[in-house]
Amino acid sequence: MSNGRFITFEGGEGAGKSTQVRRLAEALRARGIDVLTTREPGGSEGAEQIRRLLVEGSADRWDGLTETLLHYAARRDHLRRVIRPALAAGTWVISDRFNDSTRAYQGYGHGLPQGDLAALYQLVSEGLSPDLTIVLDLPVEVGLQRAGLRGGDENRYEGMASAFHQRLRTGFLTIAAAEPERCRVISADQPLDAVHGEIVAVIEQSFKELAAAS
Amino acid sequence: MSNGRFITFEGGEGAGKSTQVRRLAEALRARGIDVLTTREPGGSEGAEQIRRLLVEGSADRWDGLTETLLHYAARRDHLRRVIRPALAAGTWVISDRFNDSTRAYQGYGHGLPQGDLAALYQLVSEGLSPDLTIVLDLPVEVGLQRAGLRGGDENRYEGMASAFHQRLRTGFLTIAAAEPERCRVISADQPLDAVHGEIVAVIEQSFKELAAAS
Repeated sequence: MSNGRFITFEGGEGAGKSTQVRRLAEALRARGIDVLTTREPGGSEGAEQIRRLLVEGSADRWDGLTETLLHYAARRDHLRRVIRPALAAGTWVISDRFNDSTRAYQGYGHGLPQGDLAALYQLVSEGLSPDLTIVLDLPVEVGLQRAGLRGGDENRYEGMASAFHQRLRTGFLTIAAAEPERCRVISADQPLDAVHGEIVAVIEQSFKELAAAS
Repeated sequence: MSNGRFITFEGGEGAGKSTQVRRLAEALRARGIDVLTTREPGGSEGAEQIRRLLVEGSADRWDGLTETLLHYAARRDHLRRVIRPALAAGTWVISDRFNDSTRAYQGYGHGLPQGDLAALYQLVSEGLSPDLTIVLDLPVEVGLQRAGLRGGDENRYEGMASAFHQRLRTGFLTIAAAEPERCRVISADQPLDAVHGEIVAVIEQSFKELAAAS
């Protein structure tokens, strides 16, 4: 049995990541693939507890570095308890956010040096990296408007200034441009079906074994 | 107004750190010094929330690295919100555990490389280091027996194997030997009054301004 594939979805608020993760999972399962969907921060029991410290409360609850260390603690637990065991069992893992979100939010957003983030990622990941990352790109105003419609208590990031979200978008696009083999940028400013269609096309292009299965 | 002094207490379970922190604070206050006592993990509102993730639950709840990242996240918040502001206001800060505990527990105990811990400390501390560290040393069996009498829910570390606690003790002694200017080892295997007396003597020797005040 071969290892599973590791796919991550990235992008700012309101880009439709959760919806597209779910739809991609359904499309892959329809082709007989075993799929696990997960999310960050969180994804394991311990990481979900850390998540609550991160997504609730006021925007200045933690400084950028404290926040970053909490994210990497959660990511470590998520990798160890959920992602690695699933991949080893041949399951495909699709995560709604992963390390590029920390690079964008804490790095481009809060100004933490990318070198420190890279060192922390190396420490927790021991070399594991996503096989493919889909960046859903959207103008900031459109994304924040969509996210505002969602409600609930998890609005700490959405309360941050618009300039912050602008830096995020630039961050995601810069990361994707620097790693074109791993990252594909897809516009989320189009109907859900069209976005899903582009994602499936990218997936088929990236994982040739799917062509044989369909 | 001059900056306050930063004193940390370190050592294994049951060494009597909390008691000695309290008694030293009383002794310093009697000399007219403004003193803040605090503890790790914890010491600030956010760090106390992280503390609960660390001290409760089963011994294998987190792996060594996850635990380490949680400790440094908590330490960052503690330094920023409590320790630095107090020192800047001229207050003396006495902390029940600090960075040497992470080096001992996660480094010597769980085997994390000291270099990684040093890099993380540098990141969160931005160069701030205790002026004096008192290491309360005790044979492992004596300490665990004392700690077992304490009761309560915070027994995750005490549930770890005795060999682990032996590595801790070696760790604290090794750290102290490597930094004799900052660290003083005091035997905790003697009556509380005798331990307190030795601590006061070390403090007077380290901070000459106290001789003038007494």
